[in-house]
Amino acid sequence: MTVPGLAAAAAAIRDGRKTSTGTVRECLARIASREPEIQAWAHLDEAHALRQAEAADRHKAGGSPLGPLHGVPVGVKDIYDTTDFPTEYGSALWEGHRPQRDAVVVTTLRAAGAVILGKTVSTEYAYYQPNKTRNPHDPAHTPGGSSSGSAAAVAAGMVPAAVGSQTNGSVIRPAAFCGVVGYKPTHGTIPRTGAMLLSRILDTVGVMTRSVADAALLVELLAGADGQDPDARPAIPGLAAAAIQTLPQPPRLAFVRTPAWKYVEPETEKAFAALAGDLGAAETPLGRSFDNAIERHGVVMAVDMAFNFRADYDRGRDKLSPALCQLLERGRQVSAMVYKDAVEARETLYRELDPLFGDCDAILTPAAPGAAPPVATTGNPAFCSLWTYLGTPAITLPLLKAANGLPLGVQLVGGRGDDARLLRVAHWLETRGAT
Amino acid sequence: MTVPGLAAAAAAIRDGRKTSTGTVRECLARIASREPEIQAWAHLDEAHALRQAEAADRHKAGGSPLGPLHGVPVGVKDIYDTTDFPTEYGSALWEGHRPQRDAVVVTTLRAAGAVILGKTVSTEYAYYQPNKTRNPHDPAHTPGGSSSGSAAAVAAGMVPAAVGSQTNGSVIRPAAFCGVVGYKPTHGTIPRTGAMLLSRILDTVGVMTRSVADAALLVELLAGADGQDPDARPAIPGLAAAAIQTLPQPPRLAFVRTPAWKYVEPETEKAFAALAGDLGAAETPLGRSFDNAIERHGVVMAVDMAFNFRADYDRGRDKLSPALCQLLERGRQVSAMVYKDAVEARETLYRELDPLFGDCDAILTPAAPGAAPPVATTGNPAFCSLWTYLGTPAITLPLLKAANGLPLGVQLVGGRGDDARLLRVAHWLETRGAT
Repeated sequence: MTVPGLAAAAAAIRDGRKTSTGTVRECLARIASREPEIQAWAHLDEAHALRQAEAADRHKAGGSPLGPLHGVPVGVKDIYDTTDFPTEYGSALWEGHRPQRDAVVVTTLRAAGAVILGKTVSTEYAYYQPNKTRNPHDPAHTPGGSSSGSAAAVAAGMVPAAVGSQTNGSVIRPAAFCGVVGYKPTHGTIPRTGAMLLSRILDTVGVMTRSVADAALLVELLAGADGQDPDARPAIPGLAAAAIQTLPQPPRLAFVRTPAWKYVEPETEKAFAALAGDLGAAETPLGRSFDNAIERHGVVMAVDMAFNFRADYDRGRDKLSPALCQLLERGRQVSAMVYKDAVEARETLYRELDPLFGDCDAILTPAAPGAAPPVATTGNPAFCSLWTYLGTPAITLPLLKAANGLPLGVQLVGGRGDDARLLRVAHWLETRGAT
Repeated sequence: MTVPGLAAAAAAIRDGRKTSTGTVRECLARIASREPEIQAWAHLDEAHALRQAEAADRHKAGGSPLGPLHGVPVGVKDIYDTTDFPTEYGSALWEGHRPQRDAVVVTTLRAAGAVILGKTVSTEYAYYQPNKTRNPHDPAHTPGGSSSGSAAAVAAGMVPAAVGSQTNGSVIRPAAFCGVVGYKPTHGTIPRTGAMLLSRILDTVGVMTRSVADAALLVELLAGADGQDPDARPAIPGLAAAAIQTLPQPPRLAFVRTPAWKYVEPETEKAFAALAGDLGAAETPLGRSFDNAIERHGVVMAVDMAFNFRADYDRGRDKLSPALCQLLERGRQVSAMVYKDAVEARETLYRELDPLFGDCDAILTPAAPGAAPPVATTGNPAFCSLWTYLGTPAITLPLLKAANGLPLGVQLVGGRGDDARLLRVAHWLETRGAT
């Protein structure tokens, strides 16, 4: 038994078929049974969760107007500031850190009536070093990173939805490895105020759910400029409704291998050749100018993290993992010329990619080279890097399986700002099912 | 005899007291007499100017509606693209270059009915290497740079107004040295599309005129987002009218020495002590955090120019001056960390400066260390660097004189986006006169 989806949970509470307290208790029961193995939660406080739920139920009993997620439990990655839970960014350096203000995503969730069930595990500084979380499909395997806990908690049925973040492959990859829907909207869709800042250019708030409709619902709720995030885009009212609209005809898909194809595993290659054929997705090569886009993404990420964490490195590098230190040290060595080239090429490349969305409704591409590898790493993010770099929306659907039974994610990518079309295609594909 | 001011010339043509042809002929006569000595013009085409003027006069005779600068000649710095004149950026590398499109400032001027009289001399790439122009007050002295020709042409009475640009001190300094009004509005006020790109963060379109009212008129006309310059701000209708509003009481001025004070010449120091006393301008120190702002400005400028001119340097460094090559080579050596620090400190410092404009209406400060030095250099831009870096509006008024008779500029600086208040103060000071 798993807890219901996000929209279903909200409807059940709204209609009086369930209470928030009952829903939260279901989550806590599921957590009690799976958490010892999965370790999805960085901070969980049963009593606090139940107090929020009881307040929601009292509020409803009082006849007050209800927010769209009234009484519904949601998990939040431990890189978003919370006043009622510690916020440790997956790092020993920030042990016990208590922010003074909630991140804007948390404020918005609370305003919508949601119960913040707890903070989900992030890898250290949302980077690659594995944390404690295990893959719910096989605890010997990674849940992926860096939104490890958000993906695993949703996959294990502990919570209907969770908020993650992606600077390279941190929403799409763990969602794919854990077999849930992971949706990273267009860069800037959800304001990042109060989130750990890795890279203004790359950081994107995303969500994990068990359906496209739930992902659309949650992103619509969280979207919209907050007056503080300089990259925040306007709200997108109607996104959730648009996502489940029936397509008048099957979508035109472009099967794109990306410069990450050198990492693809044979069974992924085979599965995607079959899927592309089945969907009539024409293989579409990217120009040579995309060849070093993943390296450019790496330059931006290394420099921005080295800059934004320079104080952490200077005061506490002994508490940072060797992998993170190496990244920060690499970022310090990059020249301003190389960095500017990497930053500026982003727009040049996107202008080259954009016309493709005149010829197709979405790009079809793997979410990762293969299924979740063993827990020694969080897996290779390369199939996400290009899309994070370019700021396009991307969504992964748990439609395929590897020979070992682990999920393989099917990633769809859309044009910047055209999230509604991407979600409609995703919903179509989800409903249709894969071969 | 000099040609009339911008508003006066426009009114005379509009009222039928003068023709555009007559006005342009006055300019050409003045140019014929002064240009051999001053060398303000990079490209001048008398026949083309007269054809534009004749077309303007025919248009008026036909009873068609007139633009605000109908028939009025204006000079444009040779870093703005023009289809009917070469655009050489003051560089041998771009000799004879003919752009395919007009810069947006040129399009806007033409749409307002202005006659583009010619292209005014820019130093090489709008950097420091002196070009051919001489100071109209004493040809042994520099007109300042990089908008050398724009300042000299207006000062010599060859044209009522000219467009310049400032990346460090390229509007304020030459205007001060030549004894005209130089106005650099808030960063982003006038779109830079079609202007040579030195640094997106620093480049600012500015104007040279002989009065505050004319400067306000020209900037109001040129201001407003064009959909292409990513930093462009909304239009500021009413700026010209606001600029000449009477102040209800004398403005509160803050006398700010800036970190450039170490360069100040004794007679400037003395003149400003007297002026500040006379105006009741309290000496206001900036915090220690401003100490290396000029160096940070230098980092941004070196890196951005090294990046934006990397192809020019690679293909034609033999045609670039040693001073420019040195800058571009220095920019190539800067690390991404140092560059990011310089870019980000700009906002931090502005947040520190901004409250000062709650306590005062404008900052009073010299435009340059002293009067125009001999022609071997274009003078020291350090008294402008901080304001360009912070993107604040600044204006210089020709109110003081050095012992050798050359003009000393009085610079006023306002808060970002509060150009109207700055101009009102400037107009007040211009009308009142200096001691």
